[in-house]
Amino acid sequence: MDKINKIILAQLNPISADVEYNKNKTISAIKKAIEKKAKLIIFPELFLIGYPMGDVLTRYPYLADQCERALIEIAEISENIAVLIGYPEKNKEKFGKPYYNSVALIKNKKIEKIFRKTLLPNYSEHNDYRYFEPAKITPQNRIFELDGIKYGVIICEDGWNDFEFFDKNLYEIDPMAIVAPNADVILCPAASCSRAKKEQLKHNMMSYAAKKYGIKYIYVNQAGANDELVYDGTSRMYDEEGKLSAMAKSFEEELYEFVLDGKNEINPLIKGLELTLNSQKEFSLDHMPDIERTYVAIKTAISDYFSKNGFKRAVLGLSGGLDSTVCAVLLADALGAENVFGISMPSGFTTSQSKSDAQELAQNLGINFITVPIKDSVELLKEKYNTIFSDIEKSWDNRYKKSYTTDNIQARARSMILWGIANEFPQTLPIATSDKSELYMGYATINGDMSGGYAPIADVVKTKLFALARWMNENRAQKNAIPESIILKPPTAELAINEETGKILLAEDALMPYEFLDEVIWRIENLNQSKEDMLSADFLYEKKNNIDISVKKGWLDKFFKRLNSALYKWYIVPPSPVIDARSINKIEFKQPIVSNINYDK
Amino acid sequence: MDKINKIILAQLNPISADVEYNKNKTISAIKKAIEKKAKLIIFPELFLIGYPMGDVLTRYPYLADQCERALIEIAEISENIAVLIGYPEKNKEKFGKPYYNSVALIKNKKIEKIFRKTLLPNYSEHNDYRYFEPAKITPQNRIFELDGIKYGVIICEDGWNDFEFFDKNLYEIDPMAIVAPNADVILCPAASCSRAKKEQLKHNMMSYAAKKYGIKYIYVNQAGANDELVYDGTSRMYDEEGKLSAMAKSFEEELYEFVLDGKNEINPLIKGLELTLNSQKEFSLDHMPDIERTYVAIKTAISDYFSKNGFKRAVLGLSGGLDSTVCAVLLADALGAENVFGISMPSGFTTSQSKSDAQELAQNLGINFITVPIKDSVELLKEKYNTIFSDIEKSWDNRYKKSYTTDNIQARARSMILWGIANEFPQTLPIATSDKSELYMGYATINGDMSGGYAPIADVVKTKLFALARWMNENRAQKNAIPESIILKPPTAELAINEETGKILLAEDALMPYEFLDEVIWRIENLNQSKEDMLSADFLYEKKNNIDISVKKGWLDKFFKRLNSALYKWYIVPPSPVIDARSINKIEFKQPIVSNINYDK
Repeated sequence: MDKINKIILAQLNPISADVEYNKNKTISAIKKAIEKKAKLIIFPELFLIGYPMGDVLTRYPYLADQCERALIEIAEISENIAVLIGYPEKNKEKFGKPYYNSVALIKNKKIEKIFRKTLLPNYSEHNDYRYFEPAKITPQNRIFELDGIKYGVIICEDGWNDFEFFDKNLYEIDPMAIVAPNADVILCPAASCSRAKKEQLKHNMMSYAAKKYGIKYIYVNQAGANDELVYDGTSRMYDEEGKLSAMAKSFEEELYEFVLDGKNEINPLIKGLELTLNSQKEFSLDHMPDIERTYVAIKTAISDYFSKNGFKRAVLGLSGGLDSTVCAVLLADALGAENVFGISMPSGFTTSQSKSDAQELAQNLGINFITVPIKDSVELLKEKYNTIFSDIEKSWDNRYKKSYTTDNIQARARSMILWGIANEFPQTLPIATSDKSELYMGYATINGDMSGGYAPIADVVKTKLFALARWMNENRAQKNAIPESIILKPPTAELAINEETGKILLAEDALMPYEFLDEVIWRIENLNQSKEDMLSADFLYEKKNNIDISVKKGWLDKFFKRLNSALYKWYIVPPSPVIDARSINKIEFKQPIVSNINYDK
Repeated sequence: MDKINKIILAQLNPISADVEYNKNKTISAIKKAIEKKAKLIIFPELFLIGYPMGDVLTRYPYLADQCERALIEIAEISENIAVLIGYPEKNKEKFGKPYYNSVALIKNKKIEKIFRKTLLPNYSEHNDYRYFEPAKITPQNRIFELDGIKYGVIICEDGWNDFEFFDKNLYEIDPMAIVAPNADVILCPAASCSRAKKEQLKHNMMSYAAKKYGIKYIYVNQAGANDELVYDGTSRMYDEEGKLSAMAKSFEEELYEFVLDGKNEINPLIKGLELTLNSQKEFSLDHMPDIERTYVAIKTAISDYFSKNGFKRAVLGLSGGLDSTVCAVLLADALGAENVFGISMPSGFTTSQSKSDAQELAQNLGINFITVPIKDSVELLKEKYNTIFSDIEKSWDNRYKKSYTTDNIQARARSMILWGIANEFPQTLPIATSDKSELYMGYATINGDMSGGYAPIADVVKTKLFALARWMNENRAQKNAIPESIILKPPTAELAINEETGKILLAEDALMPYEFLDEVIWRIENLNQSKEDMLSADFLYEKKNNIDISVKKGWLDKFFKRLNSALYKWYIVPPSPVIDARSINKIEFKQPIVSNINYDK
């Protein structure tokens, strides 16, 4: 029965830079694999140090020693099994970066061979070349034999450079072309985070390579989240025809067991992972196809951020609006309803509908709820401010005729209450409820709604949040937890009156229609379009509504002007999970605050 | 007279990603150079896009087109002069990163030749390999001739890889060894930011290379600051014996004019730039040798951050303590006293000495000043909090017996006043006064003292701030602006009472002696030591004071424990100038918040 070549993919969730924790997890997985009489167990890339690792190796180089000592401990318990485990290996030569991104093969309780990564990604969330030396590759230094089968080792990015599959290639070497012709099976340890539309590309590419070389292709990915990056697991195997022949679960930890030749379990993808690439080329307001993935990714991100940091409770303001509502549901699902406290903090602008919506939502979710009116505090602060401002006006005589000061007092008073609660109760974090559409516009108050320990929806645009709310109402065990009126009413910060209408200022009046705004964001992130490109493009919103070109130009001008002053806010926004194909999350995108781009073209 | 080979080093201050602005600056400099009958004008590396550029090329690729169009405009006015100007050049091949880090040679109104950078730094604040393809180098593709002189072009990092000068080399190619033997003069456009102890290394290395190859070595650097990075200029020439034979001013913009053969002006270095490398190996509490550089760098950083972002005024809380005092002086010097507003915001813990110190400082500096007592607001907030907390306690029954909530209310109430003023008066930024020692310890209040539009001293440790205060008192035109009592009194946040002494809680009671704390930080940043290494090291503080090893161990344990919980604060700290050799500034160092490092070893 040994001949069936049972393999285990250790699709596990490491903690960044916690070598001891990751080592213990590794040892426990190997012991289980030995019990199950597996021949081989494969861990994700750099598993001992855990992705993403930031700059910890540079500042704390003894972490590499910790990893080396861990390897020895791991070897000691690895009897009757082969182990492939990723770790940062010290480069002891005169030349090059201080480390290699390596995978050790442990066999017969010894480190038998080391495989070193050649292609080092250094874009978006990846920084491999910052720490690692690209290794020279030969057919020999990437192959090992086990029971007569030749395994070739390809480490993550090493597999992403086929000269035919891609129109453009980042590197002049294709490791697959060197390794695959000399191997029977490709083993690919990876740490590949979930982003919109990435899974389909990954699938197409791996399937293409398996078929092209007539080879089995095995891929093992990390699970769980560290800070901003959520790893979607879905480790798998393709057969020699490029057909998917084994697949682990999405996002979750799993010791996935399968055989090289034979029938294996193919777990279904979380909906959203399978999105076709075509959808990348056109903007759509139909966000539903990506919603389940979005939901699971954010839930995983919250849950891991809290538990890995030793927190268990969240407190957030419940305004009765969409952003805080969606956050509350996600928090309740990630942390348990009893660990979430929703605070309704009505000011003079808060409608009774908003108040009752917030309360109804809390009741439906079963989260804790209190109301703390802030009207009196805001009035007091306004009075205090007025005295201060009059004093200052004596020296600085150009006080604004019309300012946002009062709007902001409300948001800041609320945040102060939330941080106070977090200071007073153990293991509690306040939540920043800003969404991506509004962050692009800088439509968020510093030390107000954009402040918190974590920002769950900072990479989700407003139109997608509506879809997420609808999807949660239909698909959570408890149906319709979100009151319909929250989904139906137009978004408003409820901070001011619209002087033209005399009614509450709606966000779309202050900004522009969200359907238009979200397409501008999409065009920047996915097509890298300039203002000029967009002016001549056909927006979905234009197809549905008659708008004058001067109105469109006005919106675009406003967008890019606001964008420029939003850069500071991006710099101080709390950590948030990366969700979209591209984002303004600091782990991926940085624009100098002083920069002054001409977005025209 | 043409034969004297007059050269101009355009040591200028670009704005990140403002191609139009940088182009106009370039054209105006070239016109002046033509008037002066210079043969050659050299601009810093990537001058048209401006360093640092962040990820703007990735997201807004049309900036590269803007640069190409700018080059053509520049060529049109470049009559009777050769121009060397840096820009991002599109890589049109199938392979590689999308751009080259290039320098164009413009002659006879035409782009005559393009030189491409080979060594791409990707460490600390540098991210070249994220965007640029490393160019293949030959003696031919780096040389041009002008009036019978052969100039070799070396772009910044290209010059930092001599195999003898350095014990370890990041790259296997040494461009200098390829170019220098075939050239008479080396021209090195650079963008090299100021950091403690970097200038001496740079000087030694360039002087070594000039002598080694018996060649003239000309280096031109950027001036001014963009966000966090301050460029120190000091463009220069070494002669064939490695002797400094021309040098521009430090930090300031200058069109520095000199001749290849003949006597040139050697401007003095700002004190601090010339620090010897030996001082890198040992910790010293004598910060004076680096103080002038620190002062000029921060002043430049503030001034450029404000002006490039369209701000002109700063408002800050004046507590009468060291941090806000040093910030106030720097702001007054960078922005003009009339543009600074100091607000004294005494609470119940503020001593009358602190109040009068703040007032005296403001008077001495001539900045605007008012007092806004916050005691009543804090009391009101405390009451409000108590009601809220009692309500919450009904659901969450583990309220802290002793919390920092009250301490934090004070800091947050103050910050709220500052942000309110910034919202109410045009072009005004509030200032975050946190220092580096306290940020390492997380000894800063979120949305409190660590909140602001800019954080001038976030990379300066406390013991160095004392030195800076003393130096400013001695060296500013107006002597002793800082009341001596501010420098003499022990630091305290004045937020709480020490229960043991019954007196105001001093920072050193809450943390540990600053002299010890600052050495721990220095050992991490400069020696990468672990807790174990430090336990067996001889600290300066230990030499001066008798302390038990258990006390030392207690401090180190506390340090690393606090460090781990400070990571979130580093993530949201406002932009601040990089000053030290290493820092926790986000542009250089990132550690995942969930990370859990065993700092023992």
